[in-house]
Amino acid sequence: MEFIEYYNRLRQIVEDELATLVTQERPRTLYEPIRYILSGGGKRVRPILSMMACEAVGGNPLHALHAGIAVEVLHNFTLVHDDIMDTAHMRRNRPTVHKKWNENAAILAGDCMMPIAYQILLKTPSLSHLPELITAFNTGVIDVCEGQAYDLEFEQERDVMLNDYLLMIEKKTAKMLELAVVAGALIGNAQQEHIDALRRYALAVGTGFQIQDDLLDATANEAEFGKRIGGDIIEGKKTFLILHATQKATKPDDKALLQKFYDEQGLLPDDVPLMIDLFHRLDIINTTQCEVERSMHHAHEALQALPDNAGRKMLAHFAEMLVQRTS
Amino acid sequence: MEFIEYYNRLRQIVEDELATLVTQERPRTLYEPIRYILSGGGKRVRPILSMMACEAVGGNPLHALHAGIAVEVLHNFTLVHDDIMDTAHMRRNRPTVHKKWNENAAILAGDCMMPIAYQILLKTPSLSHLPELITAFNTGVIDVCEGQAYDLEFEQERDVMLNDYLLMIEKKTAKMLELAVVAGALIGNAQQEHIDALRRYALAVGTGFQIQDDLLDATANEAEFGKRIGGDIIEGKKTFLILHATQKATKPDDKALLQKFYDEQGLLPDDVPLMIDLFHRLDIINTTQCEVERSMHHAHEALQALPDNAGRKMLAHFAEMLVQRTS
Repeated sequence: MEFIEYYNRLRQIVEDELATLVTQERPRTLYEPIRYILSGGGKRVRPILSMMACEAVGGNPLHALHAGIAVEVLHNFTLVHDDIMDTAHMRRNRPTVHKKWNENAAILAGDCMMPIAYQILLKTPSLSHLPELITAFNTGVIDVCEGQAYDLEFEQERDVMLNDYLLMIEKKTAKMLELAVVAGALIGNAQQEHIDALRRYALAVGTGFQIQDDLLDATANEAEFGKRIGGDIIEGKKTFLILHATQKATKPDDKALLQKFYDEQGLLPDDVPLMIDLFHRLDIINTTQCEVERSMHHAHEALQALPDNAGRKMLAHFAEMLVQRTS
Repeated sequence: MEFIEYYNRLRQIVEDELATLVTQERPRTLYEPIRYILSGGGKRVRPILSMMACEAVGGNPLHALHAGIAVEVLHNFTLVHDDIMDTAHMRRNRPTVHKKWNENAAILAGDCMMPIAYQILLKTPSLSHLPELITAFNTGVIDVCEGQAYDLEFEQERDVMLNDYLLMIEKKTAKMLELAVVAGALIGNAQQEHIDALRRYALAVGTGFQIQDDLLDATANEAEFGKRIGGDIIEGKKTFLILHATQKATKPDDKALLQKFYDEQGLLPDDVPLMIDLFHRLDIINTTQCEVERSMHHAHEALQALPDNAGRKMLAHFAEMLVQRTS
């Protein structure tokens, strides 16, 4: 089967099941925001990863459907709360929950999604690995909270090191992908060696994905990217490119531009081309591209520890899909 | 053993264990607020209830220690988020988390406490009832979120019925006590009949406690109460007394005073004695006292279904302690 056909089939299964899972009506100020965020689409990466991982270790992918949806619900809970903290107004081309309702509704909706997620997890056909599953879920949520706390701390700090940044994106982005594959693998009764391989795969894919995201801000085709190039530079985000440039810059002009970026917490739109030019001159674009490729290499290498089957093939395609995106 | 001695002994065990459970240092903006709220004292009602319930069904109370502490951590998570939503500045004589740090830190600390609670639950010596325990925890958190959502909705509504109010306090207050006893009972391998009895007990105690809380605002001795009488009346809170008075008032003057309370979302301090006088004249104080006693009667009646042992005796004392408080 073609990967894209396989992916879309699983995605439809996820959408159909997800639509049946939260049907309560009252209190309206609680359940309307929850249904709103859960119906907002997205690629449903996490449940599909759970199912592929389950298949890769020899399990029935559908047995991992509810665990995967539970991870998706947790992911959406973190989005609702992150959007409050980041005062984001739009998400997936729609107003964020706290803009459409209010902050209190967004706090409560997020809070309630966590027990809803754990309850969905309990729909898994066999609960023989329940303690490990619950531990993986707990660890995943704790990691995401730690990642978000570091992200907020780094906004206030001048001296963020590249390693701090990599730890932060690992916790904030990669750990939920790790949870998705570990849950799928546990449900597929995987051997420890296969669980460990899937863990390495997910961490590599998640890190590569996030660094690619940083890269696209400086290199994407604006029409395909769907947002203005250099948004991160304007917002003052300490991305992989910025932190790398900070370590590498030696010329006074370059150091002054970076200093301006830090002092003014971002650059004016007119100055964006200067920073992108700096990225090219210091070979940051190229190094970042190599870092993404290195992550992908790690991901494919990790998959070698798994049996050669359809699930493993799909996981390989999936890694490619995530980094070949242009938006 | 004297009840108070028994209670304090269990409380010390809870404090000692709780102090060992969250020891991570970084990120500081995440773990400092969590340790702050968890070290804030309080009566530790929920873990003690879990242990007493476990003992009442014939189990070892210490086996319910971690489940009870997990409920306590969840309870504290709801306090941190409720304080943001209610813009409360003080809690247990200290600044609230969002005042001492900021709103983002308070959102994240609360978020992280939920998986921490579930992880503490997993320290329970036997996990043979884990699916039921997790379901009870999920239901408890969902109920508290629903209760808080109703509470916020009722602030905006003119026509809140006494039954709506009773449903709200059941969800917001009583359901966490229910969770505490059900968890203890499950860990003590209780029969279904005993679990159901403890459930009825907790719901009665929780409802009685909350109505008593409303009553104290109008009747307590200010010195013992530790806060000004009539605070709820000034803040415009739709308490059991207010809602009952609204149903009962017929005289134009009384209706006008209640109308003023609703229109201006509370009364000025000088008008508080008028409302308290109205409560007395319409027999609201007396009816409310009877309602608290009726709840206590239900609680004691529920305990009759349990074997007559030390745990049951302590649960009976506990119910008395909660409503005999003057603050």
